[in-house]
Amino acid sequence: MNRIKAKYLIETPFPLDQAAEVLAGEQSSGTFVPVPGETASLKERFAAQVTSIEALDTVTTPSLPGAASNGESYRRALIEVSWSVENVGFNLSTLVSTLQGNLYELPQFTGLKLMDIDFPEDFGSHYKGPAFGIKGCRELTGVGKGRPLIGTIIKPSIGLAPEQTAETVARLAAAGIDFVKDDELMASPANSPFEKRVEAVMKVIHAHADKTGKMIMYAFNISDEWEAMQRNYDKILEFGGNTAMISINSVGLAATKALCDRRQLVIHAHRNGWGMLNRHPLLGMDFRAYQKLWRLAGVDQIHVNGIRNKFWESDDSVVASIGACFEPVLGGFEALPVISSGQWGGQAFETFRRTRSTDFLYLAGGGIMAHPMGPEGGVVALKQSWEAAVNGLSIEEAASSYAEFGQSVKKFAKIHHGS
Amino acid sequence: MNRIKAKYLIETPFPLDQAAEVLAGEQSSGTFVPVPGETASLKERFAAQVTSIEALDTVTTPSLPGAASNGESYRRALIEVSWSVENVGFNLSTLVSTLQGNLYELPQFTGLKLMDIDFPEDFGSHYKGPAFGIKGCRELTGVGKGRPLIGTIIKPSIGLAPEQTAETVARLAAAGIDFVKDDELMASPANSPFEKRVEAVMKVIHAHADKTGKMIMYAFNISDEWEAMQRNYDKILEFGGNTAMISINSVGLAATKALCDRRQLVIHAHRNGWGMLNRHPLLGMDFRAYQKLWRLAGVDQIHVNGIRNKFWESDDSVVASIGACFEPVLGGFEALPVISSGQWGGQAFETFRRTRSTDFLYLAGGGIMAHPMGPEGGVVALKQSWEAAVNGLSIEEAASSYAEFGQSVKKFAKIHHGS
Repeated sequence: MNRIKAKYLIETPFPLDQAAEVLAGEQSSGTFVPVPGETASLKERFAAQVTSIEALDTVTTPSLPGAASNGESYRRALIEVSWSVENVGFNLSTLVSTLQGNLYELPQFTGLKLMDIDFPEDFGSHYKGPAFGIKGCRELTGVGKGRPLIGTIIKPSIGLAPEQTAETVARLAAAGIDFVKDDELMASPANSPFEKRVEAVMKVIHAHADKTGKMIMYAFNISDEWEAMQRNYDKILEFGGNTAMISINSVGLAATKALCDRRQLVIHAHRNGWGMLNRHPLLGMDFRAYQKLWRLAGVDQIHVNGIRNKFWESDDSVVASIGACFEPVLGGFEALPVISSGQWGGQAFETFRRTRSTDFLYLAGGGIMAHPMGPEGGVVALKQSWEAAVNGLSIEEAASSYAEFGQSVKKFAKIHHGS
Repeated sequence: MNRIKAKYLIETPFPLDQAAEVLAGEQSSGTFVPVPGETASLKERFAAQVTSIEALDTVTTPSLPGAASNGESYRRALIEVSWSVENVGFNLSTLVSTLQGNLYELPQFTGLKLMDIDFPEDFGSHYKGPAFGIKGCRELTGVGKGRPLIGTIIKPSIGLAPEQTAETVARLAAAGIDFVKDDELMASPANSPFEKRVEAVMKVIHAHADKTGKMIMYAFNISDEWEAMQRNYDKILEFGGNTAMISINSVGLAATKALCDRRQLVIHAHRNGWGMLNRHPLLGMDFRAYQKLWRLAGVDQIHVNGIRNKFWESDDSVVASIGACFEPVLGGFEALPVISSGQWGGQAFETFRRTRSTDFLYLAGGGIMAHPMGPEGGVVALKQSWEAAVNGLSIEEAASSYAEFGQSVKKFAKIHHGS
């Protein structure tokens, strides 16, 4: 069927079928009294349909305030709702308003989270998705199957002048890094105007490529207002770069997709602000739905956090996010999961054990830059950690087999494990 | 001082000053270990500063999961943090990443809400803000001071063909309406392509203007992907319309601001999806901060919900939102608050009593379209309700003085009051 389907986790003081119908009504015909012109045939064509209701547990305390009825119990369920593709057409902004519009405001719900989206088949022929994806990112960096792309974030996040950033990049390139990125706080600050930074950084990247044949991928943070973002995109092209980073939540869907549509640069999607949409278990959206939308829009790389991260998210949740990225959407739309946050290589073992994959961009910030043997040691140690993980070594075995990784364990393991 | 300031409501198991410093660190230098290059002078220039901490209550249950430490108590506080404008420049996307980026992910917090933003003075000379604002909207519709602009939403939300929409508009125009809008679910569905709708609707609007001298404001929902939004904007201009509606959360900041920057059409900002950002008391952002950002971006009209709305929000919260819109930002940036959701005129009395203002776009959907005397009666009744409210009549007095409003009370008051 050519219908858009969405799954929601709901919590409601009302009977489940009644609450589900309110959601479907609000998101397709929605007013508080019937109005002239609302005919049966029109309703049949455009009405949202509740296609399944799977009851879960019942709780006694509402998860969110504002219930229309203060019952003694609040029922939870997974429900599926569908809309004709005719309601929306090829219009991702209106798709979002349809799937996630006023429904969070409904007092019939004390919890509501968009868990999953299924796009209609039509979308597969209309949307092009990631221009590079996993395969393209491997080709651009020359990193074959068998290990992740190893990357880092320029730190301090903000404050370095273009020449300082370029020096750091040169050092990282010499150490064998595959990927470097700006921090999301670093766009075009007073002492590092975007163009100057691109010029300085690309100069050392080209010098390194000329010498070694290896082209580093540098994700310049183009996040800005629309005109500036286009200029920034052009600047990267002009200086021979191949990747742009976008803070997708801050920039928004329409502008991000428009830049993905240019298909000349790899788009590195940074999800900062994501906690606001996801941290509450019964509000917002699940990463499974989120990443589908952005892959459809065309991002090539998307952040998934990491095992034993410095943020609040559990390892199980991170592993589920990675799994979601690896599932084809409409038969394809592959994007490279970006693992980051407090990573230093010690987590490579658990990451590989739970995903059996190396199709990652694996980012370490302090884990590389603050390595006891300098960034050079940090990059080598990360590659060692993944080699060891893939070869089935334990972290202890790897620490004694590899000098650089051994130093990482000494310095970073205690920060994470308190030992 | 030329600094960006932000207020947050926080909840943390850690000492307040320590938690506040983590937030400031993450949002300006942020990594889990010190790195080379992070000098003292660089820190002084670019570091975020915690400028005040006001302790509130302490609770025993964390509001959000994922705390780094499972203490026995969780302290709440209002804190203020500031950044040099040098970090961000004139870059609203990066401003959002700075004020609302990774900080929601921090396990040092079990609650975090952005409550307010103060822009540095520089922003006042760079950003132009709303091109029309309250004054411009009154001028375009010819509605002088003393009553709100009265408007409605075409219902059913989705499904009407362009000719049906145009017929409805003609009828509403004849009844004396000031403003009509598409529903947020209605962009360019299969049976009402955007251009056809603009053409059909503008034809009746021009016919009405030719006859009466009164130009109805119709907010066409241009929300779409970027290229389509620009085309839609141009189509409205081409057919002589004056207003475009944007689902700001779905479209995003960069594209919305780019369209505001064209300054040829009034921009009606629909906040659908807002519940996701605000419904939890300790997650996301307060409307006070939200509306400032969008006014700076240049929206002319912004939704604030309404008294006794059909959504979850309390009247106090709605009144606070209206008050926030009326406060100047950097000395101006006036936008017209849009009151809607379950409105039928009965709420005019309380709205006026609590705000002492008529500077609103007052929207009623079913309240107009389902009036017992038809939309004609609905529009008249709404004007009567505001006249009565401003003149200090009670709702009962108004119901017996005005025939049309009397009918509204009979039909709609019981829906809302269950009497």
